[in-house]
Amino acid sequence: MNLLDAFQKARKASRDMCLPLITEDYIPQPIEFASPPKWSLGHTSWFFEEFILKYHLEGYKPFHPMYNFLFNSYYEGAGSRTRRDSRGHLSRPSVDEVYAYRHHVDEQMAKLLSKGVNSELGELITLGINHEQQHQELFYTDMKYTFSLNPLFPAYGDRAYCEEGTSGEEQFISMQEGLYKTGHVGNGFSYDNEQPLHKTFIHSFEICDTLISNGSYLEFMEDGGYRNHEYWHEEGWKWLNTNGIDHPLYWHLQNGRWFQYTLAGVREVNPKHPVSHITYYEASAFAAWKGMRLPTEFEWEAASDRFNWGDRWEWTESAYLPYPGYKKAKGTVGEYNGKFMVSQKVLRGGSVVTPTGHSRKTYRNFFHPHLGWQFTGIRLAKS
Amino acid sequence: MNLLDAFQKARKASRDMCLPLITEDYIPQPIEFASPPKWSLGHTSWFFEEFILKYHLEGYKPFHPMYNFLFNSYYEGAGSRTRRDSRGHLSRPSVDEVYAYRHHVDEQMAKLLSKGVNSELGELITLGINHEQQHQELFYTDMKYTFSLNPLFPAYGDRAYCEEGTSGEEQFISMQEGLYKTGHVGNGFSYDNEQPLHKTFIHSFEICDTLISNGSYLEFMEDGGYRNHEYWHEEGWKWLNTNGIDHPLYWHLQNGRWFQYTLAGVREVNPKHPVSHITYYEASAFAAWKGMRLPTEFEWEAASDRFNWGDRWEWTESAYLPYPGYKKAKGTVGEYNGKFMVSQKVLRGGSVVTPTGHSRKTYRNFFHPHLGWQFTGIRLAKS
Amino acid sequence: MNLLDAFQKARKASRDMCLPLITEDYIPQPIEFASPPKWSLGHTSWFFEEFILKYHLEGYKPFHPMYNFLFNSYYEGAGSRTRRDSRGHLSRPSVDEVYAYRHHVDEQMAKLLSKGVNSELGELITLGINHEQQHQELFYTDMKYTFSLNPLFPAYGDRAYCEEGTSGEEQFISMQEGLYKTGHVGNGFSYDNEQPLHKTFIHSFEICDTLISNGSYLEFMEDGGYRNHEYWHEEGWKWLNTNGIDHPLYWHLQNGRWFQYTLAGVREVNPKHPVSHITYYEASAFAAWKGMRLPTEFEWEAASDRFNWGDRWEWTESAYLPYPGYKKAKGTVGEYNGKFMVSQKVLRGGSVVTPTGHSRKTYRNFFHPHLGWQFTGIRLAKS
Amino acid sequence: MNLLDAFQKARKASRDMCLPLITEDYIPQPIEFASPPKWSLGHTSWFFEEFILKYHLEGYKPFHPMYNFLFNSYYEGAGSRTRRDSRGHLSRPSVDEVYAYRHHVDEQMAKLLSKGVNSELGELITLGINHEQQHQELFYTDMKYTFSLNPLFPAYGDRAYCEEGTSGEEQFISMQEGLYKTGHVGNGFSYDNEQPLHKTFIHSFEICDTLISNGSYLEFMEDGGYRNHEYWHEEGWKWLNTNGIDHPLYWHLQNGRWFQYTLAGVREVNPKHPVSHITYYEASAFAAWKGMRLPTEFEWEAASDRFNWGDRWEWTESAYLPYPGYKKAKGTVGEYNGKFMVSQKVLRGGSVVTPTGHSRKTYRNFFHPHLGWQFTGIRLAKS
Repeated sequence: MNLLDAFQKARKASRDMCLPLITEDYIPQPIEFASPPKWSLGHTSWFFEEFILKYHLEGYKPFHPMYNFLFNSYYEGAGSRTRRDSRGHLSRPSVDEVYAYRHHVDEQMAKLLSKGVNSELGELITLGINHEQQHQELFYTDMKYTFSLNPLFPAYGDRAYCEEGTSGEEQFISMQEGLYKTGHVGNGFSYDNEQPLHKTFIHSFEICDTLISNGSYLEFMEDGGYRNHEYWHEEGWKWLNTNGIDHPLYWHLQNGRWFQYTLAGVREVNPKHPVSHITYYEASAFAAWKGMRLPTEFEWEAASDRFNWGDRWEWTESAYLPYPGYKKAKGTVGEYNGKFMVSQKVLRGGSVVTPTGHSRKTYRNFFHPHLGWQFTGIRLAKS
Repeated sequence: MNLLDAFQKARKASRDMCLPLITEDYIPQPIEFASPPKWSLGHTSWFFEEFILKYHLEGYKPFHPMYNFLFNSYYEGAGSRTRRDSRGHLSRPSVDEVYAYRHHVDEQMAKLLSKGVNSELGELITLGINHEQQHQELFYTDMKYTFSLNPLFPAYGDRAYCEEGTSGEEQFISMQEGLYKTGHVGNGFSYDNEQPLHKTFIHSFEICDTLISNGSYLEFMEDGGYRNHEYWHEEGWKWLNTNGIDHPLYWHLQNGRWFQYTLAGVREVNPKHPVSHITYYEASAFAAWKGMRLPTEFEWEAASDRFNWGDRWEWTESAYLPYPGYKKAKGTVGEYNGKFMVSQKVLRGGSVVTPTGHSRKTYRNFFHPHLGWQFTGIRLAKS
Repeated sequence: MNLLDAFQKARKASRDMCLPLITEDYIPQPIEFASPPKWSLGHTSWFFEEFILKYHLEGYKPFHPMYNFLFNSYYEGAGSRTRRDSRGHLSRPSVDEVYAYRHHVDEQMAKLLSKGVNSELGELITLGINHEQQHQELFYTDMKYTFSLNPLFPAYGDRAYCEEGTSGEEQFISMQEGLYKTGHVGNGFSYDNEQPLHKTFIHSFEICDTLISNGSYLEFMEDGGYRNHEYWHEEGWKWLNTNGIDHPLYWHLQNGRWFQYTLAGVREVNPKHPVSHITYYEASAFAAWKGMRLPTEFEWEAASDRFNWGDRWEWTESAYLPYPGYKKAKGTVGEYNGKFMVSQKVLRGGSVVTPTGHSRKTYRNFFHPHLGWQFTGIRLAKS
Repeated sequence: MNLLDAFQKARKASRDMCLPLITEDYIPQPIEFASPPKWSLGHTSWFFEEFILKYHLEGYKPFHPMYNFLFNSYYEGAGSRTRRDSRGHLSRPSVDEVYAYRHHVDEQMAKLLSKGVNSELGELITLGINHEQQHQELFYTDMKYTFSLNPLFPAYGDRAYCEEGTSGEEQFISMQEGLYKTGHVGNGFSYDNEQPLHKTFIHSFEICDTLISNGSYLEFMEDGGYRNHEYWHEEGWKWLNTNGIDHPLYWHLQNGRWFQYTLAGVREVNPKHPVSHITYYEASAFAAWKGMRLPTEFEWEAASDRFNWGDRWEWTESAYLPYPGYKKAKGTVGEYNGKFMVSQKVLRGGSVVTPTGHSRKTYRNFFHPHLGWQFTGIRLAKS
């Protein structure tokens, strides 16, 4: 697929996923990490405007003088911006105006792309497309979070946006001790944090060939997993007690049966589906209860050809750190990944809401250990 | 005007004031005290449903089983409810659904009223009408607050919703010492907190016949009023330092000139208009700077026939307390006023956004001393 | 008693009350409002140094250049100071050094007083003596608060510092409607907030001749008083739910019996003693449960010759506001009372730990409504 | 040295370091992480009582029934305890009583040790001795923190407790790519987190042979290091802006010259000494400014025989995670290290206040990235 097609396909996907929304749904931001759809649609357009059109399309003028302030997310190099926790305070610009902004950016990008672009610029545009896809994934998780707080429990779609995924009997794959190669190689796109390809020494280990199911997780709950400090990090134990946590996000107990809010509405928890919306603290406690552990990201990547993955983002034991020899990109776009490399954990895999083609075995997702609004899950390992 | 007419007029006014809005404007709640228009439209309808239709219209069924939870504001007697700071998290029900709810309540109320109602029920309906009007006033102040945070500074109306008001030369009216009557009397509507009519001994005092103007307030600012602790309560001084306050809400200094955000957009501060959006702390500090004080609510009411009022809610020195012999109403509606009678200050008068006929000289408005998002102002007194 | 004797007696009393302490007890400050004894001993000495010796004893040099910073409480006019919540962070100066400071101030004050002082200076010194006595009262309440948090529950004294007080059968005194005089008159000392003497119109009312007993308060508790929102202000209900309050401060339930921490250690609650350590919220809720109310401070003062008082500071319904014609003193000492006249409630009476001669019927104590660490109690009134 | 001698030597060192204190100094805790000396002396004694005497000395009875509650730090398995932020609220037990407790524990431990102990118990006692030493190090850093907040800036010792350390010209050591062994080996003591010894693949790198000096750090400051977001993690940039940080902890600018609070009082910053009290955020920003990075803990350990270390705890780029094959100890003592293995960074080395013999090249210290009250410093690496 050529770059223009790829660009237009990604941009269309963002519009398409909003089709089931009503205007009101574009606005609220109930928590700092869950951005409103309107803001996300503006932000992904701003990304192309700020990093590409402004510098590479001659004579380009920003669509609106305040949109840089409104739609910059966290790029210090691009100037001051709306506070991250205040994106839901803005009723204007209207949804229509944001679509007009998108349309304008699309047209200008088409103009730029029709002239042909050099490889450096092509890479930057590809980054923008991947950025757009990341926000498509976030769209589903943010929308789910917002709807889940509404006592009316609105459904995003009737045709059950499928959250199910697969989980089977837990069997372990043996991996040999040795030097492995970790990181991205080849011509395809990758983020800077997947590079450089480098050698890693990995001790022999075993890794589970399936995700942990709701049924297995229920056993942990029923065995008092949330009440026994021995399974938990000190930080996780504090989190659990401060917030009164005793089950995964989105679960509700009704008359002795467990239900969960899904994008298709409230459904009974199916013990055969992989458990979802798990924090690192819970994943780690579950593993401790099993007498096992989570894999490192290096183990995961080394073994990833030998099991199916892609239904849940999988917590690893690894902290999000630079690879040996990591260099962040020059300029403002260098803020994309590098400045977050402290206090977060790496997740590997992908999820039921990851756009097709957006995941690969070297992809490093990262979140703080207390967050579970992504479609996160658990895969076990042992030494 | 008969009760049905009064009801329908008040209900229509709520719809009319929303005509300049776009759907998006109905949703955000940037701060706990500023409710979203959609919520307010639902809440005022709920008030009639919960307190009147449910008990007085035979066979009435609530419009929706969750609306009591969604639209109850603070009535413990009416059960659990949406957190006050989370009204802006709800995209559903849609704006159209809320209008349908209003329409349904209007029809059912018309049905009830067409049958004739006894005087007790009539009083309750009149309370609902006044409640609706209070929210009309809040609509403007909440909308102004929300728009003011938006870097696009949207205007509510082109035809400048008039915030100006009048303020002239400061002259003082002398009032004699003596016993005065305070509180509501007669057949017209009043809230329970305006009752009973009672005697108050007032010492001789003087009260200013005009509101303090922006020009006078600027003198206070230019004289270092915000930097001299002597004018401030300890609590006000802390508020000012913690929040870095050195001018009234909505004011902005640009190139040495003061501008203010208004419902018609950003306008230069006019020194002849009465100062607005003043907290009690600021009003009290200004008075101290003048070597004067604020009037008590008893002084204000006693003198109120001798000056013009109605452009700004005027802070008084009085705390919001029950009058001698005060009884709160029986049942849940008794929570309307009485339970707030601690830690708040009384304001008297009315403002440029108070609905016609909703203010009277015995009306007691009340807010915490640090709040200034209402159209509040300053009138001076001295002993 | 001449002024020198009065001064020395008050100063000695501060030292005497510390005799049961060990050095360690002088240091901790477990909460912002409870100052450490060492700080209080320094602060009361600083008061004489800063407001009297510095200006009125020729050639006086401050004892230590940093003590103004260390021991200033809240006087903006006296410069910057230790944060109020950080007084317990300071191990130095040592307790001995603070006693040396006291000794120095005592000597210099004796020198000043031996020369004779004019009436204006005499009044200022009398203010300092009363200030010292206020801190003696606070010493007991702060010490009790600190010890109460210690799982060892240390006793301040074996000879049970008597907290008991008297409470009898609840009988009501009738008071006639009319003009009363409120405020201080005569030559004795009073604070500026008790002045000027002024006329107040009071409606006929009844006031209870005894304090509410623990026994009566237990009836309120057993009747679900802490679980029924109808008795509570909205603000009190929030306080109660946020903090999980269901009994008075210092009470503990053990095997179905109520105990309370006292300055003599943990003792069983005696139903005949007046209830103590009650917040305004609780006092007001108790009164509502009884179908009564708290007296205003004007009612209390008017009736105070007709009942015994002095065992508990008694919450009134009155907000702490300036009397008509109130003028705060010139200069920094004017910050003593006036700047606190917002958001607080007035208490009248005195308590079992008030120094002899420090209370009078016009005395206005004031605290925020959520505070109960003073020996506060309840007296009922009704219209 | 036999175990009894080692035990008694460590216990005596804790008493000796307190000799310069006055009783008052044992009490305050100005911030959650800085424990009062009295608490620490009690806690280290409790460690021997709870983990050793209680289970291994026949007939042993706890010294006081409440001391387990008072002196347990964070061991969930040992029951409930004083809140970590409330250790400074306790004036009792007295300092003398805590010394009596220490004396009692010392006697009983001598009794136990005189009978001879098996190797498993011997290891547990050695753990207790190392625990005692960790608190000796914390004693200095906590004391420094507390004194630094006191406007009198008290000195811990006249004979300047030497904080200086050495720092020379920055030269780089080259290390070859290859498999290295990381972790503790041999018969000496180590914590469980240093085990097991395992292979690590390390890419070729260079590491600086000296600590960064105050002089080099001043260059960073003068070059605007604290004002340029490019050098900082997003989390560090937020920390810096929220707290208004623009220099290291304990530094003060006076008349254009930099001073720092030390345990010997306030001294001018010496450009030749290694910079100290640096957070991870600052260490990492400094390295970025230099175009370099911090070493990983694996690199540090591999190269540690080739440079001098021991004056500053050195921040590494590594997150605090379990080594491959890590097993935490059985029982409550297993809470010592393992439950903290999330969200912290590893430090290597030791510091000027580390007890002799307490550091080794495999030692893993760990703190959150915003903390700098330890004697932390910077060593650079590059790829």
